Amino acid sequence: MHPTRPAPATPLPRLCATLCVLFLSAPALGARTAAAPAAAAAPEAVAAQLRDAALAGQTIAYAWVSELTSRFGPRPAGSVNERQAAEWAAARFHDLGFENVHIETFPVTAWVRGAESAQIISPLTQPLVVAALGESPPTAAAGLEGEVVMFASFEALKAAPAGSLSGKIAMVARRMVRTQEGAGYAAAVVARTDGPGEAARRGAIAFLLRSVGTDSHRLAHTGTTRYVDGRVPVPAFALSGPDADQIERLAALGETVRVRLHSSASYVQDAHSQNVIADVRGRERPQEVVLLGAHLDSWDQGTGAVDDGTGMAIIIAAAKLIRDAPQRPRRTVRVVLFGSEEVAQPVAPYGAFGGHAYAGSHKAELASHVLAGESDSGADRVYRLELPQAVLQGEFAKTALRVLDPIGVLGAPRPPEEAGTDVGPSVEAGVPSFALNQDASSYFDIHHTADDTLDKIDQEQLDQNVAAWAALVWLAADSDVDFRTHAGTPPPPP
Amino acid sequence: MHPTRPAPATPLPRLCATLCVLFLSAPALGARTAAAPAAAAAPEAVAAQLRDAALAGQTIAYAWVSELTSRFGPRPAGSVNERQAAEWAAARFHDLGFENVHIETFPVTAWVRGAESAQIISPLTQPLVVAALGESPPTAAAGLEGEVVMFASFEALKAAPAGSLSGKIAMVARRMVRTQEGAGYAAAVVARTDGPGEAARRGAIAFLLRSVGTDSHRLAHTGTTRYVDGRVPVPAFALSGPDADQIERLAALGETVRVRLHSSASYVQDAHSQNVIADVRGRERPQEVVLLGAHLDSWDQGTGAVDDGTGMAIIIAAAKLIRDAPQRPRRTVRVVLFGSEEVAQPVAPYGAFGGHAYAGSHKAELASHVLAGESDSGADRVYRLELPQAVLQGEFAKTALRVLDPIGVLGAPRPPEEAGTDVGPSVEAGVPSFALNQDASSYFDIHHTADDTLDKIDQEQLDQNVAAWAALVWLAADSDVDFRTHAGTPPPPP
Repeated sequence: MHPTRPAPATPLPRLCATLCVLFLSAPALGARTAAAPAAAAAPEAVAAQLRDAALAGQTIAYAWVSELTSRFGPRPAGSVNERQAAEWAAARFHDLGFENVHIETFPVTAWVRGAESAQIISPLTQPLVVAALGESPPTAAAGLEGEVVMFASFEALKAAPAGSLSGKIAMVARRMVRTQEGAGYAAAVVARTDGPGEAARRGAIAFLLRSVGTDSHRLAHTGTTRYVDGRVPVPAFALSGPDADQIERLAALGETVRVRLHSSASYVQDAHSQNVIADVRGRERPQEVVLLGAHLDSWDQGTGAVDDGTGMAIIIAAAKLIRDAPQRPRRTVRVVLFGSEEVAQPVAPYGAFGGHAYAGSHKAELASHVLAGESDSGADRVYRLELPQAVLQGEFAKTALRVLDPIGVLGAPRPPEEAGTDVGPSVEAGVPSFALNQDASSYFDIHHTADDTLDKIDQEQLDQNVAAWAALVWLAADSDVDFRTHAGTPPPPP
Repeated sequence: MHPTRPAPATPLPRLCATLCVLFLSAPALGARTAAAPAAAAAPEAVAAQLRDAALAGQTIAYAWVSELTSRFGPRPAGSVNERQAAEWAAARFHDLGFENVHIETFPVTAWVRGAESAQIISPLTQPLVVAALGESPPTAAAGLEGEVVMFASFEALKAAPAGSLSGKIAMVARRMVRTQEGAGYAAAVVARTDGPGEAARRGAIAFLLRSVGTDSHRLAHTGTTRYVDGRVPVPAFALSGPDADQIERLAALGETVRVRLHSSASYVQDAHSQNVIADVRGRERPQEVVLLGAHLDSWDQGTGAVDDGTGMAIIIAAAKLIRDAPQRPRRTVRVVLFGSEEVAQPVAPYGAFGGHAYAGSHKAELASHVLAGESDSGADRVYRLELPQAVLQGEFAKTALRVLDPIGVLGAPRPPEEAGTDVGPSVEAGVPSFALNQDASSYFDIHHTADDTLDKIDQEQLDQNVAAWAALVWLAADSDVDFRTHAGTPPPPP
């Protein structure tokens, strides 16, 4: 989607030089900082400078995602690649000067994609591009064959009578709608999560899904499915868009389509995943935490560059900019790289997922987690800020939007509808959440496909994200606003 | 690349109605045609009307490529799909009213892609997206492993000393340049055709190539390679662009990259391919032939929609428009759907290819083949007309360009540099050639990949091609211009 970036991964920061120059070149602030580092500049001015520093050539974010994806490639939950990437990330956090850096492990059952293939075997012979859905069981070694029964929607599948799919392969052909904020995904994904169960309930021997995606390439979009009695009940596969088209056209020509499916997917029962935690310790109220999340694991077909390499890169670069500011914020900024996000169903035998594990092991601290947000919608620009209900109308929001408006971020008139999978369990436990919504118009072209690789990242868009996060998180962490109730002192006007 | 077209393949023509209305609605011509069908309208006026009929809703072209690719999918040379598609095409030609419809077979050794896979095995584990190059031999059943030695260009590989690649896997990393007329392909493809031989000569156990393509997707571009002593000497694979990027980045990080490669490709020695021939018989000089070529076979990963389903669709629709005009042209218009174009090396044991077979079996007629052209550059618009040297400056060219200019076709100042693989052997035997150059800027994003499927076709662009071909071919076939010498009478001015 973007020109290939031939540059190799570069060593991490030349940031400090950049940032120091920027700080020192701002006359009023520079003078004040030089005279008395403890006498903070106006928070809004610092936020604006962090924003501008992010845009002016910070090298943390792109270097992070470049080196991470180059050195560790795909990082499926419970894999060696995921673990080694976590160890590398912890070491990098140390190098970058973060505090409280550590890894927290938790058990998972890992799902391992095997060999997989699919063919139309009648009325013609043609290979199909498929991806087994996450955690779906293997077929018999010889594969399975059946007639395809096509449904225009998940609702149509649910309307099929009991037993009507005996010995057949159910297929849901619905197309995902392209939207900016991602609503098309929410509307489409239910067929992926619940389709295998509904198909099996009606006797189907397997489930096929037109990929939940907006592209038209021969690349299938994988993703997790809902367990029924602790397992995915039938082999389940996503078809690439053009392959789904082909089956639809044959059906429209009056042909009965038979396909052969094979998967040798397997499970590793005693695997583990891990969260990587790193803090920028607050100068006044270090026990109060602004929690920033992204996930370290990825699906196995691509290298998780935009899902969620960029999310990590954005929050790490933002936190590093804040860490290197002349003065620490009042509160602690905590970065958590969550494990096992893509397999987010805490049921036996799959174990926990990262967001669940964090909320459990940090339960006692959540009351002093003042705000949480996660970055997990790709690499495109932020266009909207969602804040907790309590602060939607107050000075905090006005200040934040003054800083973010110049980089194209609007204020949303309502709080986030959902916090995201990583910080979700903490938010359910009472932590207020914010969101910096990214433009997701193109995200679902590559989401959960082999095409999720470094070349898809536009560095300018990435840096705009860092700018928005650095500014917003600084304002939250340097304030004493209570995002639950909006008590506390808002930042002073500029 | 284009929105998915949900419509199923439609039955073939509603063309006659459309064309008749158009002809009758042109007052002068309509009157003349009605009064005396044998008294032809001015050829330029007819050419303009054919052009406009093509743009106004002919349904031949898209229906052809839709039904062909839906019913027969991939059509590799020597396959059942290719043969069945040829039989279907011949039946369709009969239905459309073509004459002299027949199939001419010739022997080939078919190459059959098997299971294939590749992984980086050190310094990390990562699956790679590859495609075995056409006719390349299988690996041992267990695959092969080796260290990758990277070359920035084919010239750099050729500069490597004898024996320097013993036990290694040679890789050429050069990127193809995107160009409108396809020159980037010519500059890049030598590494594919000659790379395996040069690598083997220096001791390499396998050959890897950054795909000859301009996209950045996890899809590898296959293609044929040059035989050395009648065979491809080592297993040879194309890597997708992002996979080549990854190996380059690891090398730039100082890592030694080892990969495992596997292919179970095989050969079928007693296969055959075939050309499908169909004529629109000329009314005055039927022995004089304007030859239109495209190829029926395709690579096996996609369904050959734009390579070369659209080429067939364009020439067939153009010929059908000419056939259904109120008066036949003076000369015969011959459509040949060539077999085995993608495997175009007539050496043992691979046998002939379609263009070679046609030129051989029609040798005696080639002296009365007055002009030849082929359509094999995708589905984008025609932007330039290349004519034989003899007629570059004359009235024929002026007339043709008056008709083609309104649909965005420029005149080239020189004749075609090459005629194309299908009609090439006939052209080498003396038949003059023309070309209607298509914009190939995006063609090499999908060329020879699994992404070559129906959804990539823009019907408006396709119809512009039909318009250009119908108009130009009509002018050539209704004239008595000698394209070898430019003797004969040019079309009269309008």
